[in-house]
Amino acid sequence: MSDRPPQLSRLTFVGDATQYSEQLRVLIPQCTLLENFSVPEVRLLAHFMDVYRAAPDTEIIRENDGGDFMVMILEGRVEVRKRDRWKRMQLIAEVGPGRTLGEMSMIDGEPRFATCVAIEPVLVAVMHRESLARIIVEQPMLGAKILMELVLMLSQRLRATSSRLVQVLDAQARQESGLHEE
Amino acid sequence: MSDRPPQLSRLTFVGDATQYSEQLRVLIPQCTLLENFSVPEVRLLAHFMDVYRAAPDTEIIRENDGGDFMVMILEGRVEVRKRDRWKRMQLIAEVGPGRTLGEMSMIDGEPRFATCVAIEPVLVAVMHRESLARIIVEQPMLGAKILMELVLMLSQRLRATSSRLVQVLDAQARQESGLHEE
Repeated sequence: MSDRPPQLSRLTFVGDATQYSEQLRVLIPQCTLLENFSVPEVRLLAHFMDVYRAAPDTEIIRENDGGDFMVMILEGRVEVRKRDRWKRMQLIAEVGPGRTLGEMSMIDGEPRFATCVAIEPVLVAVMHRESLARIIVEQPMLGAKILMELVLMLSQRLRATSSRLVQVLDAQARQESGLHEE
Repeated sequence: MSDRPPQLSRLTFVGDATQYSEQLRVLIPQCTLLENFSVPEVRLLAHFMDVYRAAPDTEIIRENDGGDFMVMILEGRVEVRKRDRWKRMQLIAEVGPGRTLGEMSMIDGEPRFATCVAIEPVLVAVMHRESLARIIVEQPMLGAKILMELVLMLSQRLRATSSRLVQVLDAQARQESGLHEE
């Protein structure tokens, strides 16, 4: 077990994830990170994760915070929010069991991109960068599998975000050329 | 050596990358994928890559093509272009030695997002998905390192693209509220 990160002091530590391997197993089909994992692999992975409980309205991850861990929702629903340029909180998404949050900061150590708030009683499994490094050394094939899934996930999100950006810029260009025609 | 992919038939196959390990070594500081690699790691990696030569105006990667390989530019400059909604080619970027291209399709097998055209005589090292899978099995620590670098790279691009999207949407919202005020 790793040291508990100060950013998780708003949550209640429950124990390591080995007691929750059945709950992790059930998540396999609905969790992008786990979808290609076998049951024994998930059981192995559980040794490298900690479980926390968050009461409703708890910030599990806070925008701009540091934090080198990712979170997998086991139970409950979470809102993802981000401040716009006027510092108003905007809802980006509402997510539930199987969804992972904070992978980017776990990997690159950069500040959190958005805030994730429990809107119900929530149970999460947490993986620290340090645990991922340990998996790579102690269980290289499992490590490669996790990294491969992370690469896939980020690649798909990057495609989606890039397409959305291209769309928005196109729409803008069309509108501008429309304005010019008037 | 892997079978040569049909998408690379426009290029000239030179040989495997072991003869170019000195050129790869020199690229380390300017290549995001290699920046944390040691010289022996780069030498090892060279066994899993093939080298191709592309004449000016050759399409190295073509938007919407299939293709499960990535490309690392060793010499020369490449333009990245994408068709907009009116099917007009738009220049996205001009890149040079050390830049990698096509990582997303290597990983997820989805169609290419953009077209990459040699604008000078270009030398590239190519890595196939199959070679990456072989690295993971035969050299797990090297495999984990490559995957980790890919995750980092994608994560940074996703942050940049997401920020750009947020910016553009913000500017749009501001303009719209400006229009309403008028």
